[in-house]
Amino acid sequence: MKTLGIGLLGTGFMGKAHTQAYRSIPIYMGDINPRLIAIYGRSPGKTRDVAEKYGYLKYYTDWLELIKDNGVEVVDNSLPNFLHHDPSVSAAEEGKPIICEKPLARNLEEALDMVRAVEKAGVIHGVIFNKRWFPSIRLAKKLIEDGVIGKVSHFRFAYHQDWASRSRVMTWRFKRKLAGYGVLGDQGSHVIDMIRFLIGDFSRVLGRSRIALGERFGEDGAREKVDVEDVITILVEMENRAIGTVEVSRFSLGRKNYFTFEIYGEEGALYFDMERLNELWVYTRAPPEVEGFKRILVTEGEHPFYKYFWPAGHTIGWVESFTLQLYYFLKAVEEDREYSPNFRDGAKVNAVMDAVYESLEEGRFIEVKEI
Amino acid sequence: MKTLGIGLLGTGFMGKAHTQAYRSIPIYMGDINPRLIAIYGRSPGKTRDVAEKYGYLKYYTDWLELIKDNGVEVVDNSLPNFLHHDPSVSAAEEGKPIICEKPLARNLEEALDMVRAVEKAGVIHGVIFNKRWFPSIRLAKKLIEDGVIGKVSHFRFAYHQDWASRSRVMTWRFKRKLAGYGVLGDQGSHVIDMIRFLIGDFSRVLGRSRIALGERFGEDGAREKVDVEDVITILVEMENRAIGTVEVSRFSLGRKNYFTFEIYGEEGALYFDMERLNELWVYTRAPPEVEGFKRILVTEGEHPFYKYFWPAGHTIGWVESFTLQLYYFLKAVEEDREYSPNFRDGAKVNAVMDAVYESLEEGRFIEVKEI
Amino acid sequence: MKTLGIGLLGTGFMGKAHTQAYRSIPIYMGDINPRLIAIYGRSPGKTRDVAEKYGYLKYYTDWLELIKDNGVEVVDNSLPNFLHHDPSVSAAEEGKPIICEKPLARNLEEALDMVRAVEKAGVIHGVIFNKRWFPSIRLAKKLIEDGVIGKVSHFRFAYHQDWASRSRVMTWRFKRKLAGYGVLGDQGSHVIDMIRFLIGDFSRVLGRSRIALGERFGEDGAREKVDVEDVITILVEMENRAIGTVEVSRFSLGRKNYFTFEIYGEEGALYFDMERLNELWVYTRAPPEVEGFKRILVTEGEHPFYKYFWPAGHTIGWVESFTLQLYYFLKAVEEDREYSPNFRDGAKVNAVMDAVYESLEEGRFIEVKEI
Amino acid sequence: MKTLGIGLLGTGFMGKAHTQAYRSIPIYMGDINPRLIAIYGRSPGKTRDVAEKYGYLKYYTDWLELIKDNGVEVVDNSLPNFLHHDPSVSAAEEGKPIICEKPLARNLEEALDMVRAVEKAGVIHGVIFNKRWFPSIRLAKKLIEDGVIGKVSHFRFAYHQDWASRSRVMTWRFKRKLAGYGVLGDQGSHVIDMIRFLIGDFSRVLGRSRIALGERFGEDGAREKVDVEDVITILVEMENRAIGTVEVSRFSLGRKNYFTFEIYGEEGALYFDMERLNELWVYTRAPPEVEGFKRILVTEGEHPFYKYFWPAGHTIGWVESFTLQLYYFLKAVEEDREYSPNFRDGAKVNAVMDAVYESLEEGRFIEVKEI
Repeated sequence: MKTLGIGLLGTGFMGKAHTQAYRSIPIYMGDINPRLIAIYGRSPGKTRDVAEKYGYLKYYTDWLELIKDNGVEVVDNSLPNFLHHDPSVSAAEEGKPIICEKPLARNLEEALDMVRAVEKAGVIHGVIFNKRWFPSIRLAKKLIEDGVIGKVSHFRFAYHQDWASRSRVMTWRFKRKLAGYGVLGDQGSHVIDMIRFLIGDFSRVLGRSRIALGERFGEDGAREKVDVEDVITILVEMENRAIGTVEVSRFSLGRKNYFTFEIYGEEGALYFDMERLNELWVYTRAPPEVEGFKRILVTEGEHPFYKYFWPAGHTIGWVESFTLQLYYFLKAVEEDREYSPNFRDGAKVNAVMDAVYESLEEGRFIEVKEI
Repeated sequence: MKTLGIGLLGTGFMGKAHTQAYRSIPIYMGDINPRLIAIYGRSPGKTRDVAEKYGYLKYYTDWLELIKDNGVEVVDNSLPNFLHHDPSVSAAEEGKPIICEKPLARNLEEALDMVRAVEKAGVIHGVIFNKRWFPSIRLAKKLIEDGVIGKVSHFRFAYHQDWASRSRVMTWRFKRKLAGYGVLGDQGSHVIDMIRFLIGDFSRVLGRSRIALGERFGEDGAREKVDVEDVITILVEMENRAIGTVEVSRFSLGRKNYFTFEIYGEEGALYFDMERLNELWVYTRAPPEVEGFKRILVTEGEHPFYKYFWPAGHTIGWVESFTLQLYYFLKAVEEDREYSPNFRDGAKVNAVMDAVYESLEEGRFIEVKEI
Repeated sequence: MKTLGIGLLGTGFMGKAHTQAYRSIPIYMGDINPRLIAIYGRSPGKTRDVAEKYGYLKYYTDWLELIKDNGVEVVDNSLPNFLHHDPSVSAAEEGKPIICEKPLARNLEEALDMVRAVEKAGVIHGVIFNKRWFPSIRLAKKLIEDGVIGKVSHFRFAYHQDWASRSRVMTWRFKRKLAGYGVLGDQGSHVIDMIRFLIGDFSRVLGRSRIALGERFGEDGAREKVDVEDVITILVEMENRAIGTVEVSRFSLGRKNYFTFEIYGEEGALYFDMERLNELWVYTRAPPEVEGFKRILVTEGEHPFYKYFWPAGHTIGWVESFTLQLYYFLKAVEEDREYSPNFRDGAKVNAVMDAVYESLEEGRFIEVKEI
Repeated sequence: MKTLGIGLLGTGFMGKAHTQAYRSIPIYMGDINPRLIAIYGRSPGKTRDVAEKYGYLKYYTDWLELIKDNGVEVVDNSLPNFLHHDPSVSAAEEGKPIICEKPLARNLEEALDMVRAVEKAGVIHGVIFNKRWFPSIRLAKKLIEDGVIGKVSHFRFAYHQDWASRSRVMTWRFKRKLAGYGVLGDQGSHVIDMIRFLIGDFSRVLGRSRIALGERFGEDGAREKVDVEDVITILVEMENRAIGTVEVSRFSLGRKNYFTFEIYGEEGALYFDMERLNELWVYTRAPPEVEGFKRILVTEGEHPFYKYFWPAGHTIGWVESFTLQLYYFLKAVEEDREYSPNFRDGAKVNAVMDAVYESLEEGRFIEVKEI
């Protein structure tokens, strides 16, 4: 079994998810063995504890040292948005494969700089859009590609959570300088990537946004200003002429992880809700007597990826999307193949988000830049 | 348009539902016109008011007079259980078609006496099991008959309500002498008829019951003893070897009209919930990738009876099952044809219920009497 | 019981629904008795048949004669959009209360002319937005007004059907001259009225639309051009600063009557789907352990209007929204009170739709005209 | 971080699930570190491969050797039913903590012998009933214990799968000698344990069963007789007087892992469906206007165990129930405390199943033996 030495940047929520994924790969896939070489975090105490708990052999409080560690064969950047660029570029410069959390960058320019760095270095690169790896999403992709729902005509995508309405604490996620975008970058980047994945490239966009809570409390208890949106609604036009709506919010009470879509095509329709991520609802034309949306539990051995997991009906959780995404990234590294979604895909999402931001200023449709 | 003179016995919940049904027939079907001739109720004041409100030309406080009224061409018995036998037999003796609310009688013996009366008189007879007439139920019936789910293997039927847990008032429904049975007769008779309708005849049954509230308050505020069950569970074996469970309860908090079934066959399965009566869920074998239960909104013109109603998606309510059942009864009368479900069907339900009651005493399976 | 003579214009789908409603009022409400005086239709044969079937005493093939009939005390205009203006204005000029189907007019100007006519004549006027009368919608309204979900922050409304993708026949609904709008006027007017009803007045709108099928076949088999949209998506801003998305489509395969909304407030959220019109989903803050959306079956005696109908769990259908709307219109007429929604409400919907149409041309947000 | 050496018996479906669980404990809980010492399987080749893939240091093809291995501090018996007794007893005799898959034994007598062995040896013992560890189930347990739904009155439990209808292959699961029971032991043991966990001890039971497919094909292609049930329905009475129905089937087409219950109490009700294992539906009395079943996504930090996992809405999968159960078993071992469910709990499930089997013969209610 091929082994690959992992260097992980980040000890937070994403660091935990990625580590659980790496440790699961031998059980589920079993043809590659990620070795947990080193982890980076700012705080020495916490990072040492996390390293021990998660099973990393070393820890660093300087990310560049981790990247340069000879045992580290793959760099995983799970740091906050404002630390996506520099460590990712450094990894590329060191000639190491790099996979980076979404959104790739805080704006298109920063993203394009990252693209140039990895392309110049010739390293394998990827960006985390884990939702592409739910078996239900892959089934949706397959059904669209097979023409089962026909040409896509119109759609609704939404991603609602309510966590930001439950806390008044200031974090980097509420500051444009650190996050680049508000909820658009945090949750919305998933939506935009998913629309690209399932439907195609964007043509024009127009958004309207709100800050739901204008001030939050910093660590020292001081009030600080929120300068990025909490709620955003967008009209989109695709290059293939499909039109759609997008809603993204972290202030939608009662919705915990409601990433949902309805896609209408000329021959059928799809419905998905990530709170029930093992399911896909599919409508296709049928004799009128027996037509209706079918609730497919995407857990058969015949479903995408499910052979790795369990017998039918034994559902997987959210984290297994990382297991799949990281597994396929390691396979690409092992086989020295291009990977998708990569930094260019990530930059395309930034291009859409920047166009949305411009539309907020202009109050009219903005063309998405080609890159 | 053929007219038929209706004489309705009963001014309560069922009297209202039946009247609304009769008044709807010209709009939906339009080839028969029920004339509301007379209504019977115990109280002169209330009955007169109801007659005026509902549009009956006359009212009676003696049911025999209503039955003998020359304008009354069809007798509709919507009285409580203890008044099913006598007026129905009298109607037959007067040579008038008679449709009677469920359960037909308070026990098998009484039911058989009613059967003898109508068969001797040669009148058209029917028993109200309105749930047979939901388009969703008819679709279920058709799919079973067409072999779509194959031979039925096993099933669950249940009928849960919670109204009896919300009131401590004594009514005839809680007295064996007046009602014949507890919740078994009231809600359970629907279940038993539906099993017969969809699956076939019963072979053996075994029940277990509970009285949830032992005493209730009479009109004078006095405590009175409840002597019939509020909750009952039953194992059943069918003549075709299918086995199943039945639950019936009027003490199931949160359930308002939860008449539900799951039917498993050798090639598929069905699911129904009357709180969403316009829907039927159907599973049939399909390629594993796209198998799942399909939610069918049974409102297309191609669905049973729906041509009478509205364009697809414009749902009907509970009362339209009466519109359909009474319409087809009037058609049978008009065309002098046998009707189903008739008194014999009603008596078969009594036979099953009596066997269940015997099993409660005996603690073992009891064969259902053939009649 | 007070009687009122009804004159109905229209023998189609809406004529049927309204007639069923009028005939149901005595059963459900019982304090007013609509007398079916006369019905108007273009074709003498069909109109006579319908009159007989539905129980109208007379029929006319000239709508002005019907309006002038002395027995007609209330005029109900269920004709196509291009016949909303003239007969409604004539009814007003004859001093008769008038209720007109939605959308009130083919554009704002026409609508304002109708408003002027009824206000000048001093007659009671109403516009059919029957969805306001579902008990579930009224419960939503009450919960919002009671502050249960707090100030509304953002929302999604959608109305998807698929009937237009199942037929290639040309009708007036696909011609701007006759219908005024495409799916925006037909289904979208319901959505706009509902947003006004539940959330308030519109500030700015911006839409994007598609014609899904550009040609249809006329009665003579000739191809004719469709010049109004089949699908439309809209961003809206409300005067109270809430923002939202609207989707309206008659080409959404698998959706039969999917009028749905998600409304997010500062203290809770609501969800509705008209295919399950007896239900409302409500989220309100609760201890984290037991928080979640509650599925309310809006059929209790304590729920809006349900006292008129049945015991809990015995659901109503789509048509009962007309029964309620027309009942309250007749009550307003009887008591000589203003009615809502009236022609002014109808015109406000036209104002929003006209602004949407302007935005389609301009590609930017358009202010909704105050009227 | 405390480490414990694990010896796993079994390389199949359960071996995989248990190993994934052990590897996840450091990530989720982090205060105990299971070391994968050794794995046992019959086939040397396959076992060696599995050991390497899963990360076990050694492998054995003699289970007694594994048990006696000094590095093995905890024995995990994930073998088929006919290998529950001997290795478990040997582990006890070696003084090692033992956790065994369900059902504990092939009959009560065998189970009691296992109980005697572990109790005599004084080792910590446990039986795998992983479903007890879903956060949703723990919330159900807590709500019942807190009296939120009042005294339980009646219930329905069911466990439907369809895998056995999709294959005609003979395995040990279809042979009484090897499995002890049919679907009753396989899926039904989960149901019986869950009823004990949530509601209490059984008093009397009565079952009715079917073999759906009488012959299957052995490895050599020969037809072999199935001598245990595929479908079983049971009436149960509890010591606390609650009554209920149980259905268990591996021939319910369309159902993949439909472990479901409805529990009705005097103050509320619960509903669960394992195909959506992150959810619990709860009804409690409320003002009639806003009463209904609440869909609780059991993923908040305040929910049982969820602090170990992810932020709200980021759901877990089926396997995490093993992570939790095995973690708490290792904690019991580390702290030398009794564990529940243990072999005595397992034997109580065998007592119920044996009573059901006796009732199949007798056709009457059978008292469950106290042990």
